Amino acid sequence: MLEKVDLKQALKKSAYKAVFEPLQFELAALQREAVENGVPVVIVFEGWEAAGKGTCINRLVERLDPRGFKVHPICAPTDDEKHHPYLWRFATRIPRKGRIAIFDRSWYGRVLVGRVDRLVPAATWKRAYEQILQFERQLTDDGVVIVKFWLHIAKREQARRFEQIESDDALAWKVGPSERRENRRYARHLSAVEAMLEKTSTANAPWTVVAATDGRLARVKMLETVNAALRQGIAGARAAVTVKTPMKASRRLAGQTAVLDRVDLDQRLTKAAYTRQRKRLQERLRRLEHELYVARVPVVIVYEGWDAAGKGGNIKRLTQELDPRGYEVLPFAAPTPEELDHHYLWRFWKEVPKAGHLTIFDRSWYGRVMVERVEGFCTEAEWQRAYQEINEFESMLAAAGAAIVKFWLHIDRDEQLRRFRERERVAHKRWKLTDEDWRNRKKWPLYRQAVNEMLERTSTTYAPWTVIAGNDKYFARIQAMQTVVRAIEGVLG
Amino acid sequence: MLEKVDLKQALKKSAYKAVFEPLQFELAALQREAVENGVPVVIVFEGWEAAGKGTCINRLVERLDPRGFKVHPICAPTDDEKHHPYLWRFATRIPRKGRIAIFDRSWYGRVLVGRVDRLVPAATWKRAYEQILQFERQLTDDGVVIVKFWLHIAKREQARRFEQIESDDALAWKVGPSERRENRRYARHLSAVEAMLEKTSTANAPWTVVAATDGRLARVKMLETVNAALRQGIAGARAAVTVKTPMKASRRLAGQTAVLDRVDLDQRLTKAAYTRQRKRLQERLRRLEHELYVARVPVVIVYEGWDAAGKGGNIKRLTQELDPRGYEVLPFAAPTPEELDHHYLWRFWKEVPKAGHLTIFDRSWYGRVMVERVEGFCTEAEWQRAYQEINEFESMLAAAGAAIVKFWLHIDRDEQLRRFRERERVAHKRWKLTDEDWRNRKKWPLYRQAVNEMLERTSTTYAPWTVIAGNDKYFARIQAMQTVVRAIEGVLG
Repeated sequence: MLEKVDLKQALKKSAYKAVFEPLQFELAALQREAVENGVPVVIVFEGWEAAGKGTCINRLVERLDPRGFKVHPICAPTDDEKHHPYLWRFATRIPRKGRIAIFDRSWYGRVLVGRVDRLVPAATWKRAYEQILQFERQLTDDGVVIVKFWLHIAKREQARRFEQIESDDALAWKVGPSERRENRRYARHLSAVEAMLEKTSTANAPWTVVAATDGRLARVKMLETVNAALRQGIAGARAAVTVKTPMKASRRLAGQTAVLDRVDLDQRLTKAAYTRQRKRLQERLRRLEHELYVARVPVVIVYEGWDAAGKGGNIKRLTQELDPRGYEVLPFAAPTPEELDHHYLWRFWKEVPKAGHLTIFDRSWYGRVMVERVEGFCTEAEWQRAYQEINEFESMLAAAGAAIVKFWLHIDRDEQLRRFRERERVAHKRWKLTDEDWRNRKKWPLYRQAVNEMLERTSTTYAPWTVIAGNDKYFARIQAMQTVVRAIEGVLG
Repeated sequence: MLEKVDLKQALKKSAYKAVFEPLQFELAALQREAVENGVPVVIVFEGWEAAGKGTCINRLVERLDPRGFKVHPICAPTDDEKHHPYLWRFATRIPRKGRIAIFDRSWYGRVLVGRVDRLVPAATWKRAYEQILQFERQLTDDGVVIVKFWLHIAKREQARRFEQIESDDALAWKVGPSERRENRRYARHLSAVEAMLEKTSTANAPWTVVAATDGRLARVKMLETVNAALRQGIAGARAAVTVKTPMKASRRLAGQTAVLDRVDLDQRLTKAAYTRQRKRLQERLRRLEHELYVARVPVVIVYEGWDAAGKGGNIKRLTQELDPRGYEVLPFAAPTPEELDHHYLWRFWKEVPKAGHLTIFDRSWYGRVMVERVEGFCTEAEWQRAYQEINEFESMLAAAGAAIVKFWLHIDRDEQLRRFRERERVAHKRWKLTDEDWRNRKKWPLYRQAVNEMLERTSTTYAPWTVIAGNDKYFARIQAMQTVVRAIEGVLG
């Protein structure tokens, strides 16, 4: 994905001056608000050697109250640190409420240099992904704002910078064998970086990739991102103080969450682009269907989303060119009396795909933490417990070799209203609209909260959620097909 | 542990007749009650070949309503079953409410014959333990009663039975190569059985080991166990109907749980036996302390328990002969303001033992799901989430090679009162008793519920709970030392 980053952009000095200082002053003000509202902040800097992390951090803290932040430069672990669990030295440095901890390199070392230079066995760095996700989820659940930067430059640019540094006697020591090795093995590092971004860019702690060829541009983007995250975190903490029962929102859920708010619903595709890409992807899917049959890989695809978000049409395009002997689409509505008499996962256990087959669940076990939660069909203890149960269930599927894809088809409330009205108007669409749809629509805020919490607590490395921007159906269908293709390719290896 | 089973007991035919039929009639009545109260029941039979599983099952169902039970004989998986996740064929056979599913062999095959005969790779059967624990916890959380039997006979007895069967032309086919192999490799099977019993005998789904040399005795014990489990499950389901807010108990928690109720608090040790065993164990512990230092194994020991349960004295005896450079005892009380400003796990992260050292936590992170829950120091969402967070935290410690031991020191309410009164009476003990102790005592039922839920939801293969019968301090101290010795030996391998 990094090849899509435009590394040629630049910012003139005058333009930089005009925007950068105001951003710094804004951050200083936000720092004071974070203290008042007890918001802890973690900022992680990762990136290529010589990409400009140091300068970024200098400019970031320039106008901050020095009592309120601490920079943690992370080098190779000491002997003492090696004798503790890997995350220990990071977990103990987490800032208290109102303080900012800045990590110059971080816990991601294990999946970057640790992986590429083979400092740890493969099983260890692979497990680190899951441990990192758990660690960050626990922090953000507790109200910590996490901002993560990857400072990106090209191989040639890095080599150029090394030469420049070496030509300066005072700085030459900065480029040693490990730096030169990184440049030599740029491609190998790059694929580790891409894997890291893919596996650990979560809704609660997303990565921001910063094009860093031009330092000014990089620093503006960095500061804009930090400020936005702080604003959101502070608003979340404020909202949490006022929100009480019956919403019973945890602090994060009140405002900061915004998994759904982060989706850019304006993304669109022209019909021509759609048609072209659809054909290509459908062909690819058909071929993959055969490959996964031969390799005996089971595939689980879950569709969840707002009413009228376009699940049906999306599934139709996904399966259009598939061999029907290899896949199955299963719609799930309210459980039967027999199903109610079993554990709620039972009716889904029965439909788990056979190795080599695809099963598409049109609504799924996630009903437990959405409709059953919101409508009170189960107790709070039951749906609270369900997040872990679902993670365990999906980890069993993954352990059996399954590729798991989960879609939340997202549209905004206005778009839903527009589609409801259209269904009323058009005779052959009218059957799609029921009184229940209108009732559910009224409970949008409650569902929104449940969906946000679901997306956060059940996104794992082995079964990540993909939130699809669904206002434009063309865009949504292509995004879904691309995601499925990537997931299957990932498992087939 | 199986060497302690007395395989020589027997029951006279007349005594058997007097008790067995009444037990069968009682079970038939309980079956009707289970239907009325919607209680699903799972009964698992595992055991040596020719130990009498078949006869047991026959007698078990003899007087049951045949519409209400189903026997599932489990053989090697079919091709179809092989193409699904391992637990699929069991999860889909879970009984609905009011029905009884009897498994003649079960999901434990993977850690028994699958392990011993190397039908699956080691990583696979090792992972199966955790999957099985998750599976059973999900079911019992949902109100399913699980009874598991291991029918035990000695190697010689098994050989004798094989001979007897082979001498009967009509039955000779029953003893084939795989049966004879089991007898030949009895020792290897035995150690797999012991590992299974140790790792999967949980509070919610305990194993019952049945001495099966004498069939009559075995069947009486089997039926007594089934009846007791059903009685408890039915009482739990009934209580759940009446219990509502503010207890907010899930069905299991209302009655069936009884993790704590299952502890036999009458277990005692004479002073002489105590002194003898204490000395031996303390010596062993001192030696192990050195071994784990050399092997760089960290050890985490958690002490939780009722006020006045004897934590202090227990810890004292555990550490008495240890080299103080190798261990640390950390008492935890209410968090400081700085600690309150961090994630609740932070203050424990800081104290995670260094590799090669022991850390004993006198109270711990479990405060989150006990005192903080009961006293309302955190929100329901926060303590509900904490079970998973704690499991994740401990799994990180385990992944870093730690041995983890967790004790709940259990006493009953009368014993606590007796000890409180003694503390009032005896001058040098008076400081130990505070007003808060009396206040906590009043909330015994709320704490009891929280403790039961904690024990169930955070007992894992990598960090199991040990509930210690604490009414007799001698007994409690020996039990704790034995558990620590076994855990460290387990990790040192």
